[in-house]
Amino acid sequence: MFNYYLSGYQGALEGGSEMVMTAFNTFEYLPATINRYLLTNIIRENWGYDEAVIIADYDALLQTKAHGVTKDDKDAAVKGILAGLDIEMASTAYLRTLEAAIKKDKRIIKAIDEAVLRVLKLKEKANLFNNAFSGDDKLLAELINSKEHQKLSYQLAVESVVLLKNENNILPLNKNIKVALLGNYATSNDLLGAWSWYGDTSQTKALNDFFEVEYLSNGEDYQDYDLEKIKKIEAIILTLGEEAKESGEARSKANINLKYSQVKLIKKLKKLGKPLILILFSGRPLILTEIIKDVDALFNVFFLGSNSSKAIYDLVYGSVNPSGKLAMTFPRSVGQIPLYYNHLRTGRPFLNDDNPYTSHYLDEKNEPLFPFGFGLSYSSFVYEDLKIDKSSFTLDELPTIKITILNESKFAGKEVVMLFIKDEIASISRPVKELKQFKKVSFQAGERKEISFKLKYQDLAFYNQDLNYQAEAGEFLVMVADKSLKITLKGDENEDFK
Amino acid sequence: MFNYYLSGYQGALEGGSEMVMTAFNTFEYLPATINRYLLTNIIRENWGYDEAVIIADYDALLQTKAHGVTKDDKDAAVKGILAGLDIEMASTAYLRTLEAAIKKDKRIIKAIDEAVLRVLKLKEKANLFNNAFSGDDKLLAELINSKEHQKLSYQLAVESVVLLKNENNILPLNKNIKVALLGNYATSNDLLGAWSWYGDTSQTKALNDFFEVEYLSNGEDYQDYDLEKIKKIEAIILTLGEEAKESGEARSKANINLKYSQVKLIKKLKKLGKPLILILFSGRPLILTEIIKDVDALFNVFFLGSNSSKAIYDLVYGSVNPSGKLAMTFPRSVGQIPLYYNHLRTGRPFLNDDNPYTSHYLDEKNEPLFPFGFGLSYSSFVYEDLKIDKSSFTLDELPTIKITILNESKFAGKEVVMLFIKDEIASISRPVKELKQFKKVSFQAGERKEISFKLKYQDLAFYNQDLNYQAEAGEFLVMVADKSLKITLKGDENEDFK
Repeated sequence: MFNYYLSGYQGALEGGSEMVMTAFNTFEYLPATINRYLLTNIIRENWGYDEAVIIADYDALLQTKAHGVTKDDKDAAVKGILAGLDIEMASTAYLRTLEAAIKKDKRIIKAIDEAVLRVLKLKEKANLFNNAFSGDDKLLAELINSKEHQKLSYQLAVESVVLLKNENNILPLNKNIKVALLGNYATSNDLLGAWSWYGDTSQTKALNDFFEVEYLSNGEDYQDYDLEKIKKIEAIILTLGEEAKESGEARSKANINLKYSQVKLIKKLKKLGKPLILILFSGRPLILTEIIKDVDALFNVFFLGSNSSKAIYDLVYGSVNPSGKLAMTFPRSVGQIPLYYNHLRTGRPFLNDDNPYTSHYLDEKNEPLFPFGFGLSYSSFVYEDLKIDKSSFTLDELPTIKITILNESKFAGKEVVMLFIKDEIASISRPVKELKQFKKVSFQAGERKEISFKLKYQDLAFYNQDLNYQAEAGEFLVMVADKSLKITLKGDENEDFK
Repeated sequence: MFNYYLSGYQGALEGGSEMVMTAFNTFEYLPATINRYLLTNIIRENWGYDEAVIIADYDALLQTKAHGVTKDDKDAAVKGILAGLDIEMASTAYLRTLEAAIKKDKRIIKAIDEAVLRVLKLKEKANLFNNAFSGDDKLLAELINSKEHQKLSYQLAVESVVLLKNENNILPLNKNIKVALLGNYATSNDLLGAWSWYGDTSQTKALNDFFEVEYLSNGEDYQDYDLEKIKKIEAIILTLGEEAKESGEARSKANINLKYSQVKLIKKLKKLGKPLILILFSGRPLILTEIIKDVDALFNVFFLGSNSSKAIYDLVYGSVNPSGKLAMTFPRSVGQIPLYYNHLRTGRPFLNDDNPYTSHYLDEKNEPLFPFGFGLSYSSFVYEDLKIDKSSFTLDELPTIKITILNESKFAGKEVVMLFIKDEIASISRPVKELKQFKKVSFQAGERKEISFKLKYQDLAFYNQDLNYQAEAGEFLVMVADKSLKITLKGDENEDFK
């Protein structure tokens, strides 16, 4: 937990978050909402955020009854307040039951006082004592759909799309090419995805509000289309994927394959012999193994919000160059899950040889279809020279890593440069690689730049078996794209293992 | 780990195992083979098995290098011996490197002495100092395939088969019915499965050595069969599934659906309108959702060893009544995995109502196709009356639970009676149910029996958050088949939560 999960929470608090919401799930068999180890020992004591206000998720305090760890509302309230939960969300157990409980346990009144003080301090900090209505409707109306927010929404959308395939550089599309725009998202404005509270689909434009096409059909079946018209066009832009309502809270799926009807549609359209550009909407990584060879280009656009259609239009025609990278792994098949790039090593790594006793599948590759961090650009970025100012160093004089990158193309573009690190040998088994730093860098056409990463203590450190956060002496492998080099943290390696 | 996994290991040691083999995998990021917490703190210190001899799995000590936790053979040897590993398997790092290491760390010679003493004591116990060749070839030759072993092998086989479906009581089959025996296992003797060191397939009989059939074909495709002959028979026994070599060590699969070609074959044969009895060979639970409606009867026979065919023959014709129960869960689809019966509760249990925010799938049921413990019999066992001598009790006077079961059929048979327990409310979240005791009981046709289970401390106890093993006061739900009752362990419930 410490090495994989907690750093995200810690980072949010370091970044200025004043509040923490508890998860619905258990940690070590105890729901997070009444887990004193998580709420008090880690957040307030170990990390020192003693003024962080901790709130339950919706009804999570009373759901501890269903988890089988509290008897009734009063029991839940007592365990919540003693764990360090300041605010219960939606329920009213604190209000109804804690007064009676105070007499039985002296710790309770102390915990209430602390919780109240934390909440009041935060309200003071937010200036709520002077202006209790800062979240009022008038202000909301001014902010929502404001020009500034629309601009930000467009920027988020256009940089979040990931180009997964672009065979023969079919994209960006020339505006003179005659195009058919097909599929249910051709005319849909249901593009906001889950939990878009103030989103208004009636104000959201559809793709056909931007695309000028020879043939338009929002049909989802092959038989919906006028084949005579399609035969006259030069490229097909097909839009399909999941519906917005298939994603979000409590929207789990057992089968994340692309729908069979959509697979069939793609295969039929492919047979027409026209370049096929797929605009794929989804709230999760879908399994695309069966169709990836059938499409010439593939944009995974997820659900991009109010400016989806403009963003997609600009990307397809190249007025903006795609720069999004996958923040998750796209598996080849459902049975590969869980699949993630920063997995531990195995004692018998698969080496693609005849040894049958290595870690592999009989019927599937170990690799995903698209790895974490994957994403194409219209530019062609060549990673040239990976250098370090000192390959052997101490923690007092951490080195700087430099990579030269050339945009060997006629397109200006942005590249996410990612620094991965592997701790070769440590007192505990460390992942095959971990993303430690990244920079999104703009390049002009033909431009060469040197990008540098100053190594940080956190890039080398981890929580060891005693939960001490430390960097251990020895070799590390630094990886940037297809380039890598070995570096050495000086020190007594034998000290690390006790 | 303590509540789900370790009790099996502890039980083996309580049952008299003298040796423990380390797993290949890591526990808390450290391979088991050099994990002092597992080998010394838990097994030798907490459990008190200080004379248990601990051996690595094949090459596992040196594979700690690939795990990234040891630098070289010497480092692996030092970490192994200090963790409490007495014997490395296959490798020779102790022999080659420990002598030089002794001088650098005084703990090493002490650890070697302890390991050697444990090994010598075990050899003495096994009488190896008087008879060093007790495992010699002559004795092996006498034992392997001996009558006694063959009898045991038959008994294991016939009680391990699980009858998953028996529509309209098509089974047991009347010997007068004209039968076709089809599929690759109709004539195969490759029935021994993985790791059958001394197994000899040439001495293993095939199904057609026992079955007297009107039509026999070991073809795997529909077109292999003589349909004119099949039309004249009255029932089809189809044999198919996985090959033996698809199971065993390092034989992972990403896709555990029944092979598509086999699904197609079943669906085509079903159309012939004859009763279809499927004999399914597999080394793992396969996904049978797509074909379960197409077969009239289904025996999952796994890989049963040298007496497979006789066992299957006796079961099909009813000279033995099926009594095996599933020791694992059979999922409805790959995406349900991991799926197991003794899972934790959720804060928002699925209640089959309109609430969209419960724990469920959009596209799949939560339930498996066949749950843990499932298995049909030719008998019909009616669970009548679940009773307890005292429903409220202390640990000093644990109650006895009694269930009356009637074999309401004309078949004598055996039934595995299973006692499940759920701890309703505890200091940590406990599973929805756990199998605590079971008895395999023989019934004559029409016989009624009362089966009793004396509750044990272990049936109520678990490791709490402080890793103390304890039973907590409060309510427990006792479940036997479809019957249940609530019982109460007396005591101060407030003491449990600190």
